[in-house]
Amino acid sequence: MKLLIVGSMAYDTVKTPFGERERVLGGSASYSSLAASFFAPVALMAVVGEDFQDADRKLFGDRGIDCSGLTTVAGGETFHWKGEYGFDLNEAKTLQTDLNVLGTFDPEVPEALCDTPYLFLANLDPKAQMKVLDQMHSPRVVAADTMNYWIENRREDLMDLLPRIHILIINEGETRQLSGEFNLVKAAHRILKWGPKMLIIKRGEYGVLKITQDSIFAAPAYPLESVFDPTGAGDTFAGGFVGYLAQAGDLTPETVRKAIVMGSVMASFNVEAFSLDRLKTLNKEQIEGRYQAFKELTEFS
Amino acid sequence: MKLLIVGSMAYDTVKTPFGERERVLGGSASYSSLAASFFAPVALMAVVGEDFQDADRKLFGDRGIDCSGLTTVAGGETFHWKGEYGFDLNEAKTLQTDLNVLGTFDPEVPEALCDTPYLFLANLDPKAQMKVLDQMHSPRVVAADTMNYWIENRREDLMDLLPRIHILIINEGETRQLSGEFNLVKAAHRILKWGPKMLIIKRGEYGVLKITQDSIFAAPAYPLESVFDPTGAGDTFAGGFVGYLAQAGDLTPETVRKAIVMGSVMASFNVEAFSLDRLKTLNKEQIEGRYQAFKELTEFS
Repeated sequence: MKLLIVGSMAYDTVKTPFGERERVLGGSASYSSLAASFFAPVALMAVVGEDFQDADRKLFGDRGIDCSGLTTVAGGETFHWKGEYGFDLNEAKTLQTDLNVLGTFDPEVPEALCDTPYLFLANLDPKAQMKVLDQMHSPRVVAADTMNYWIENRREDLMDLLPRIHILIINEGETRQLSGEFNLVKAAHRILKWGPKMLIIKRGEYGVLKITQDSIFAAPAYPLESVFDPTGAGDTFAGGFVGYLAQAGDLTPETVRKAIVMGSVMASFNVEAFSLDRLKTLNKEQIEGRYQAFKELTEFS
Repeated sequence: MKLLIVGSMAYDTVKTPFGERERVLGGSASYSSLAASFFAPVALMAVVGEDFQDADRKLFGDRGIDCSGLTTVAGGETFHWKGEYGFDLNEAKTLQTDLNVLGTFDPEVPEALCDTPYLFLANLDPKAQMKVLDQMHSPRVVAADTMNYWIENRREDLMDLLPRIHILIINEGETRQLSGEFNLVKAAHRILKWGPKMLIIKRGEYGVLKITQDSIFAAPAYPLESVFDPTGAGDTFAGGFVGYLAQAGDLTPETVRKAIVMGSVMASFNVEAFSLDRLKTLNKEQIEGRYQAFKELTEFS
């Protein structure tokens, strides 16, 4: 089934211990829509400036992504993020954030996309996420991501959103921050009371936990020998996860578990190169191969 | 098959956000031998002082553990450790270490134990670990644990030990510290070159990685709602792991994977109470139940 992804498009300036890149394509919508496009038909909604490169636009078209919801602001500049990672690649140090056109992003969902059955609200101001949701005609599945900044500065908007989504995708520290509870299982159960049916907790190199009211699933991250750039790993995971759900068309525990592993597969590829470089050259066979490797990584009798 | 465990016996004074206990039974040999005793016949070697309580001694006897290698130093005091944990239960802050009789522990393996086929050198000065190994008559499987203190202060002794053991059990930070390499997979491969056939990397609440030259296995930790005291979790894991290996009598990948999960099961119980309190009341049925819960936690198709 078709999946609409709303989020940010960015140019990122990134430094890791293994190299650096200036103003390369990034943003939550970029990573997640490209990852999702391997599984389901995807439409993306985001805003860019006049500086947005044709080659970057083409990338999404080449993967069959519906870009009718991609707005270009005349005279505007694309959102720019500058960050740095140390050897502990789990956390980025943000050096600069230029919101540019993202600061005034007021998402108008094209009429043709309002009936899209799967909706992923990638990391974005919860007010903008809500505005998109308000325009949709009862989507079957709504997943949303968020980040520490919104939890701190837009808490009320985020709390308003929670009862209206099925799946909250959030990282470990943010789960604690949002709930005010240190123990992760208790923290998740507290957040589940506020609305979502399912929490997908991202733990970076330690993998992912899925927590519902009555079950827990744990998937490790794939242990890699070379991680070049973790930027977008969480968004890529989310895109693969929601993309697989949209492909399957149901939310059975089996499907959700497979989707989590598929998301982890996509994230494991993404960190092998800067920007979306690895996703650009990826194919179905490589994805299947690593899915099998995940099975071998975790199986016991 | 029979398993000999050599390590420390301690009285621990522990404070966690959930309570505190003064001079309760602890030490690497205590936790690991009690955990192992659920799977295989165990003999333990350690040293205690005259202050060692009969009730604590009885605990091991009651679980059928051969205590012929437990030395009591007349006039001596048992090793005492005092530590504290914050809400992040992954790392203890050591407040006080009184080596007492452990400082001069010079292990003499009783003749009757020299033929024990499985040997676990629990956390202890690598010189003492080596001395034990020297007295054994070609054990079939030798596993060893260590800690940051020995890596920093007894590096050469530890390096001498590595070529003589099959399995090194070590935590994540120590893997990086010993190898001088941040990436965990690379770090493990470097250490494998120094001797052991297999690294078992403990990651606290994130579970365990097994790394050999040509394979990786990842097991999560069981996500618990109440963790009271993480003291001894690593030793309990190691005891359950080596105990299960000794029970199975082989080192096939299937056995090793099961052993890792069994060790994780034992550790997940241990942290539910202070000291060895939870292990004291544990039974086979509860162990089997949580093993099944681990399967449900990780399975996908």
